[in-house]
Amino acid sequence: MAVYFLSDFGTADVYAGVVRAVLLRRAPGATLVDLAHDLPAGDIPHAAVQLYAAVPHLEPGGVVLAVVDPGVGGVRRALAVRGERLWYVLPDNGLLTLASELDPPQAAWALEPARYTDGPVSATFHGRDVFAPAAAHLAQGMPPEALGEPVDPEGLVRLSLWTAEGDEGEVVTFDRFGNAITNLRPRERPEEAHVVGRRLPFRDTFADVAEGEAVAYIGSSGLVELAIRGGSLREAFRLLEGAAVNLHGPEEEPPPLEIG
Amino acid sequence: MAVYFLSDFGTADVYAGVVRAVLLRRAPGATLVDLAHDLPAGDIPHAAVQLYAAVPHLEPGGVVLAVVDPGVGGVRRALAVRGERLWYVLPDNGLLTLASELDPPQAAWALEPARYTDGPVSATFHGRDVFAPAAAHLAQGMPPEALGEPVDPEGLVRLSLWTAEGDEGEVVTFDRFGNAITNLRPRERPEEAHVVGRRLPFRDTFADVAEGEAVAYIGSSGLVELAIRGGSLREAFRLLEGAAVNLHGPEEEPPPLEIG
Amino acid sequence: MAVYFLSDFGTADVYAGVVRAVLLRRAPGATLVDLAHDLPAGDIPHAAVQLYAAVPHLEPGGVVLAVVDPGVGGVRRALAVRGERLWYVLPDNGLLTLASELDPPQAAWALEPARYTDGPVSATFHGRDVFAPAAAHLAQGMPPEALGEPVDPEGLVRLSLWTAEGDEGEVVTFDRFGNAITNLRPRERPEEAHVVGRRLPFRDTFADVAEGEAVAYIGSSGLVELAIRGGSLREAFRLLEGAAVNLHGPEEEPPPLEIG
Repeated sequence: MAVYFLSDFGTADVYAGVVRAVLLRRAPGATLVDLAHDLPAGDIPHAAVQLYAAVPHLEPGGVVLAVVDPGVGGVRRALAVRGERLWYVLPDNGLLTLASELDPPQAAWALEPARYTDGPVSATFHGRDVFAPAAAHLAQGMPPEALGEPVDPEGLVRLSLWTAEGDEGEVVTFDRFGNAITNLRPRERPEEAHVVGRRLPFRDTFADVAEGEAVAYIGSSGLVELAIRGGSLREAFRLLEGAAVNLHGPEEEPPPLEIG
Repeated sequence: MAVYFLSDFGTADVYAGVVRAVLLRRAPGATLVDLAHDLPAGDIPHAAVQLYAAVPHLEPGGVVLAVVDPGVGGVRRALAVRGERLWYVLPDNGLLTLASELDPPQAAWALEPARYTDGPVSATFHGRDVFAPAAAHLAQGMPPEALGEPVDPEGLVRLSLWTAEGDEGEVVTFDRFGNAITNLRPRERPEEAHVVGRRLPFRDTFADVAEGEAVAYIGSSGLVELAIRGGSLREAFRLLEGAAVNLHGPEEEPPPLEIG
Repeated sequence: MAVYFLSDFGTADVYAGVVRAVLLRRAPGATLVDLAHDLPAGDIPHAAVQLYAAVPHLEPGGVVLAVVDPGVGGVRRALAVRGERLWYVLPDNGLLTLASELDPPQAAWALEPARYTDGPVSATFHGRDVFAPAAAHLAQGMPPEALGEPVDPEGLVRLSLWTAEGDEGEVVTFDRFGNAITNLRPRERPEEAHVVGRRLPFRDTFADVAEGEAVAYIGSSGLVELAIRGGSLREAFRLLEGAAVNLHGPEEEPPPLEIG
């Protein structure tokens, strides 16, 4: 069975590598697929967008192991969640906020590692000691009931973040290229996107404008993205997460002419 | 069958991870080998050098999936190429310029995703929607004719870049350590390399000079490289891609003595 | 059999990818597990700490391929080492200094690539030409005697670095988050750690102090770590490798009151 592993462990230390090793020792037949490990450290909204982008393309029945866990060692719960399509093993900190729109949680269990692993549990590395053994357990087709007590799947921590079909939204995060990813997923293509006082034309893709021009388009995950072709919109506009974004469609009244 | 995956998607987002997931869903038995994903964004010459360095060491019959694609969504073609030793699935933007010296294209097909995948094709993520399904198709031993119409394998886009056996060449790119990689592959070892007015002694390796000294040597891919032991030649010489490099061999006349 | 691959090759070039390709061509059934590839370039103490952290979690009988090799092409030996639990293939430059406390070398062989590979050996890329073929050889269960002459397993190069059960140690390296990793592994939890004139309270984890506060704790590898919650202690304290760290336990005399 496929296990999809996402984290902010980076690749300068062996944290992600040790999680891989533990997982494959416990579930030798699993297909381990790295989703990404250089996510911005502790940035839960960014990670939530990444899961939203990935989930539609993962093998149904697979296990998503997502460890972006700034609260490790604190009071946050560790969970196994059964969605309609996939399993999730992750801290209860809002990571599933957006992905749960695509794959709603059906059941959840609060992980109690003493039930399914006999190793010691460190205070700071639950990826290795709590989450990886639980993901391996599920990847081997073992019952989730052995992992801990069931909890209300409606009661997971949520960020105040959702995708919106309307025309008012915000910048959620940025990708490596400095493109802004918003929470807007319009049903029809608008004509313009407005952000920090600027008007960006809406096109199919950034390849439809000239080098150096700003543009809005529907990104590969279905969310509106804002970019500068061949540049970083994040830097050029000094844009921050949370900036308001407004879409203006073909049915909009044109603004009144300025006279004088 | 082995699929070798190279991209500039980075590891801060799930782009590369989603391509992996799509590929392994469609070709479950494939051995997926990551070549590198933090290539400089959109830098086709750098990627072309990487393919040149990798190709001799890959399993014959394997599939190279190379996605450095600054023109995604524009008019560039998407291709499957059959070389003498390997398959290639990639945009037609010059990525194969150097590797084709080692593994000349024998046949090529222009990818038409509607023929081999029933999913929607986004405007900006052809790695996921166009290239990965084509690579999976070939990795399962399916016929390339099902991917699209044949095109002239001599007609692929080429960079004005080639490797040279002579003694005049240029800096093509740099590696992580700031070493310069040139397009020169001399048959015999020269005595010196000249670049930006400096003379570098030619040695077997950078370990043959003292810490902090500059040196030229034949790198592991057969191309001349320029380095400073324990430092970054790129920074120390403020060197840019395209800088002229000249080799001077044992048969050279010594320069006339400067008098006065 | 599992092969665990650690290097400082980075992910901007295909060095690590080519090693993977060579390894899987020669040992097709091996399970290749990447430990990390963005280790700081040439930083042997950092890599030694990473191996120390990883070794307890790796499959017994597996092969660790560790290529942090600033002396490549020079006189350092290339080795295969049999520990009590694992095999190691690596340059003889001190990488095993800390891991050998957990998995003492039982036997070692000086690699002679002409004995086990018929390819040419480059001067600068022994990961590809020397180490990967040797690791593949062992991963296929072939005898180490075929790799080269036996050498004294007590004679490996060692860093002047060890873990200490006492209360005087030093900062060995830093992780991605700017946390300092020391060489101290106390048997009982101390009350404070002192570094560069500052006193850090000892807690179970950084989650036990408020955002922005400094703290000491026993890290996931058993070594004392120093951190600032939600920040970089390395930057905040301008801390360097080698800084003295002292632990003060419950049995310590309190310092005399300062009067006046």
